[in-house]
Amino acid sequence: MTESTGAEGVGGESSALDDPDYRQAVVDLLAAIAYGEISAFERLAEDAKLAPSLEDKLAIAAMAGNELGHVGLLRDRMTELGADPYAAMAPFQQAVDLFHEHTAPSDWYEGLVKAYVGDGLAADFYREIAAYLDPRTREVVLASLSDAGHSEFVVDRVKAAIAEDHRLGGRLALWGRRLMGEALTQAQRVAADRDALSALLAGGVDRPALDLAAIGRMFARITELHAERMARLGLDS
Amino acid sequence: MTESTGAEGVGGESSALDDPDYRQAVVDLLAAIAYGEISAFERLAEDAKLAPSLEDKLAIAAMAGNELGHVGLLRDRMTELGADPYAAMAPFQQAVDLFHEHTAPSDWYEGLVKAYVGDGLAADFYREIAAYLDPRTREVVLASLSDAGHSEFVVDRVKAAIAEDHRLGGRLALWGRRLMGEALTQAQRVAADRDALSALLAGGVDRPALDLAAIGRMFARITELHAERMARLGLDS
Repeated sequence: MTESTGAEGVGGESSALDDPDYRQAVVDLLAAIAYGEISAFERLAEDAKLAPSLEDKLAIAAMAGNELGHVGLLRDRMTELGADPYAAMAPFQQAVDLFHEHTAPSDWYEGLVKAYVGDGLAADFYREIAAYLDPRTREVVLASLSDAGHSEFVVDRVKAAIAEDHRLGGRLALWGRRLMGEALTQAQRVAADRDALSALLAGGVDRPALDLAAIGRMFARITELHAERMARLGLDS
Repeated sequence: MTESTGAEGVGGESSALDDPDYRQAVVDLLAAIAYGEISAFERLAEDAKLAPSLEDKLAIAAMAGNELGHVGLLRDRMTELGADPYAAMAPFQQAVDLFHEHTAPSDWYEGLVKAYVGDGLAADFYREIAAYLDPRTREVVLASLSDAGHSEFVVDRVKAAIAEDHRLGGRLALWGRRLMGEALTQAQRVAADRDALSALLAGGVDRPALDLAAIGRMFARITELHAERMARLGLDS
């Protein structure tokens, strides 16, 4: 327990970081986000091959580059916390890779929806978790989630394609549900495997706990944001 | 001929830009560089899959991201010059794609050498051409060639691998020669197809011409820089 060291540690760091369990949970979280972004970079770069035009290719490649640009920040924070960032990422590779394996887009539009919906879901989830973090780590996490407006072109492209072919809308709506389901499956797998991460949500002396009711409200919010995102694409959720 | 409008046009633009042939040549050049960088992004992202570790993957992905980061600058300059950047890139796709098709790396080390040597060759060539451009375009071209030190990790990796396995050095030396040969083949194809680009090298009223002797010296310099680059990797050229 770190209560006696006061609310703030050296350099404005929360004393929470003196707690080795909290520290491990933070490294886990940063590592999960970082590996997710490296992986997103790879998948988006792969999707870029399916682009119907050079302009579209460049737009999706820019999304890929944006994901990658965040990794340095997360890596530096892990190093600051005394962790080897690459070793820290290893436990998350399987869940992230399985998510992508189970949601390989079969065409350009599935790739676009996945980029938009998948990235949005991850960002919503990590933003929720950020509320339970020390201020400095929270700042790093929030900065790593900005998409710099890159994904807005997805909305244009998907809406235009659905307007031309209504059956596409039905297929992509199902696809969005599948993405959500697979994301939940893999998130649950990670939560079950990583005790420190789960403990993070259980709170500490100077951090609020996330009780079952709070977890329920969190998932309600994430589901609602997902539905809004699907609606922006012109899709039922 | 634009001599009568004075040495400098509006906003510090060289009057050379009033010459439609020069303008076309500049758009061609920017388009060739831009498509080359989009293509380099794609190939490096592909090579990232072969990375033996997450750290290496991130390093090569960062090289990919760096290539992509330059495209915006080139695209904006093409737009400024009144061109459609995507249409302008189209004539260069075949030569660049053929270069990559004929030099698909068979393993991680071939990919690393290609990233380092190919990017270096292209940069040397465009830097030579930049001397014949109006100041503003020259600035854009030079900025688009910076590799921000990203490729330095290639030197470490390749040297370490050769130290462990000397036969690899022989194979990669041959590979470097093949890259050079294929780059020359495709550069020649582009020069033959694009009259405006060739005319650029022939000079204009207010721009120096590149005569046969100058072209010879240019290739001598490029070959020498290639040899230095190979030597830095520990490879014969």
